[in-house]
Amino acid sequence: MTRPSAFITGITGFAGSYLADELLAAGFDVRGSVYYDEPTDNIAAIKSRLRLYALDILDPSQCRRLLSRLQPNYIFHLAAIASVGESFRNERSTFAINFDGTVNLLEAATRLKKLRKFLFVGSSDSYGVHRGRNKTLTEDQPFNPVSPYGISKAAAEFACRYYYRRHGLPVVVARAFNHSGPRQNTQFVIPAFAEQIARIESGLQKPEIRVGDLTARRDISDVRDIVRGYRLAAVKGRPDEVYQLCSGRAVTIRAILDALLAQTPFKIKVRVDRNKLRRSEIPVLRGSHRKAAQRLGYRVRYRLKDTLRDTLEYWRSRYRSMK
Amino acid sequence: MTRPSAFITGITGFAGSYLADELLAAGFDVRGSVYYDEPTDNIAAIKSRLRLYALDILDPSQCRRLLSRLQPNYIFHLAAIASVGESFRNERSTFAINFDGTVNLLEAATRLKKLRKFLFVGSSDSYGVHRGRNKTLTEDQPFNPVSPYGISKAAAEFACRYYYRRHGLPVVVARAFNHSGPRQNTQFVIPAFAEQIARIESGLQKPEIRVGDLTARRDISDVRDIVRGYRLAAVKGRPDEVYQLCSGRAVTIRAILDALLAQTPFKIKVRVDRNKLRRSEIPVLRGSHRKAAQRLGYRVRYRLKDTLRDTLEYWRSRYRSMK
Repeated sequence: MTRPSAFITGITGFAGSYLADELLAAGFDVRGSVYYDEPTDNIAAIKSRLRLYALDILDPSQCRRLLSRLQPNYIFHLAAIASVGESFRNERSTFAINFDGTVNLLEAATRLKKLRKFLFVGSSDSYGVHRGRNKTLTEDQPFNPVSPYGISKAAAEFACRYYYRRHGLPVVVARAFNHSGPRQNTQFVIPAFAEQIARIESGLQKPEIRVGDLTARRDISDVRDIVRGYRLAAVKGRPDEVYQLCSGRAVTIRAILDALLAQTPFKIKVRVDRNKLRRSEIPVLRGSHRKAAQRLGYRVRYRLKDTLRDTLEYWRSRYRSMK
Repeated sequence: MTRPSAFITGITGFAGSYLADELLAAGFDVRGSVYYDEPTDNIAAIKSRLRLYALDILDPSQCRRLLSRLQPNYIFHLAAIASVGESFRNERSTFAINFDGTVNLLEAATRLKKLRKFLFVGSSDSYGVHRGRNKTLTEDQPFNPVSPYGISKAAAEFACRYYYRRHGLPVVVARAFNHSGPRQNTQFVIPAFAEQIARIESGLQKPEIRVGDLTARRDISDVRDIVRGYRLAAVKGRPDEVYQLCSGRAVTIRAILDALLAQTPFKIKVRVDRNKLRRSEIPVLRGSHRKAAQRLGYRVRYRLKDTLRDTLEYWRSRYRSMK
């Protein structure tokens, strides 16, 4: 029996690199795409066990050629502009990469013969502004996105369902809430805090941490849980179904900062940076993982405490190795 | 006092040509864009009173240059792939023209100094599949689109709201239900029936009309009501608001066919065309125009009977003039 083959777009990215770990451990033959000369640091440790292919997902014919050559059993489409903040600065690229890029891959995938599942990663940011601040969001919550990121992911989900309905493509959507962990870049809040603490501990920054709005509440998972959810959704999920992946709890950014600061012996002053202060239009995002638990057997294994500790350790080791 | 200036994208199209009539009659200085060498038959009678400019809305810099040169007070963005059926055949162009094209115009419009309102035309097709077959849809109905057309219009509406929230662009959305009338092309059901009747009456087709699924129920307005709604929404509508334009009643395609057949003395056989039979995934679309009535003073002036009669007369005169 040959191993099932998986093709990951965005394999060099944060979640992509963890998904590659996850799929290798689960016995998949793992291939992935690399966009021109983007760095492959995130997958350095496993690179010899992967096969990598150049791909610009904005080019429909490249998508068709590569997929028909690889004939994967599973496609995990993770390549995207993944930061809400970056999407505000690059609206057009966000729409192009996250929406048009997805359509290109969906279209190319309709021609495949051995494909069992196409996993698309949706986002809780597509829910956007909703009534009931403390509402627990479920998969049937309507989209009301307010960021280019949330808009692009909402539109791409519509396209996913269309490619199932119209072309029979077995698309499954894993709708992920926020997630973090080692290797995530500092456009995201947890690594942004962790990096600053590590810099302070290394004497590279005065003992003052710069923060933006601390009042937003988010449902944050460990990336290692989330990518397990991606694998489960692809293997066990049903086409045209959406599965939320989340922790089920929401914490304030302030609580995250405090938990990180509690892990350093340094006395650090918190300073609000006016440039970062723009308050999120979405005060709370909290999801339910009930459907994923019941249908996929999804379980949350990592506590937020573990994620924060591991992320801080990652940044400490980076600054140690730089000395 | 100078006349307010309006810029219409898609002015050569069906609704665009009626909107040009409407705005000229209301005292606007009317300009419009033409895509390369597309036909201008629809505006032949008023061409001397308009100023036309070449524009490919897929080119962001063309959009910026033309709009900053014209500095319109009102933009009416109607250019789109407007047929649900065509969108199934040209998925990618539909996404590009209806979504990317809209983003290009929104972005270009943020730079304007005299702009009072940007009117975007949304669609009831973005509601897609919804619970409660006979539900009267209101502006707060969530989107659940199942056609590339509905997806592209839903995504473009999200972008419209984003450009208001983020960039302060005064965007108003007129969410139109089905509309018809003379000059509409035969990709749409009423002109498709009317043309066949006119051909039969002219002896160009045997007395047999080919039809697809007749069971869908749609809320159909006269285009002349709808474009008045566009003008009212642009002039009186509030930024970031959506106004549904519709008749408030839904009729089956079968009833439309019967009403048209009642207007010809010819005995015509109805034959189901298997190629056209694909049943719509959306059995009923019926809207409420209450908000438009209350806030904009929108009134339905044309009865469906008038629309059908005028459309049939249009096709009769076209076939008469061809003889």
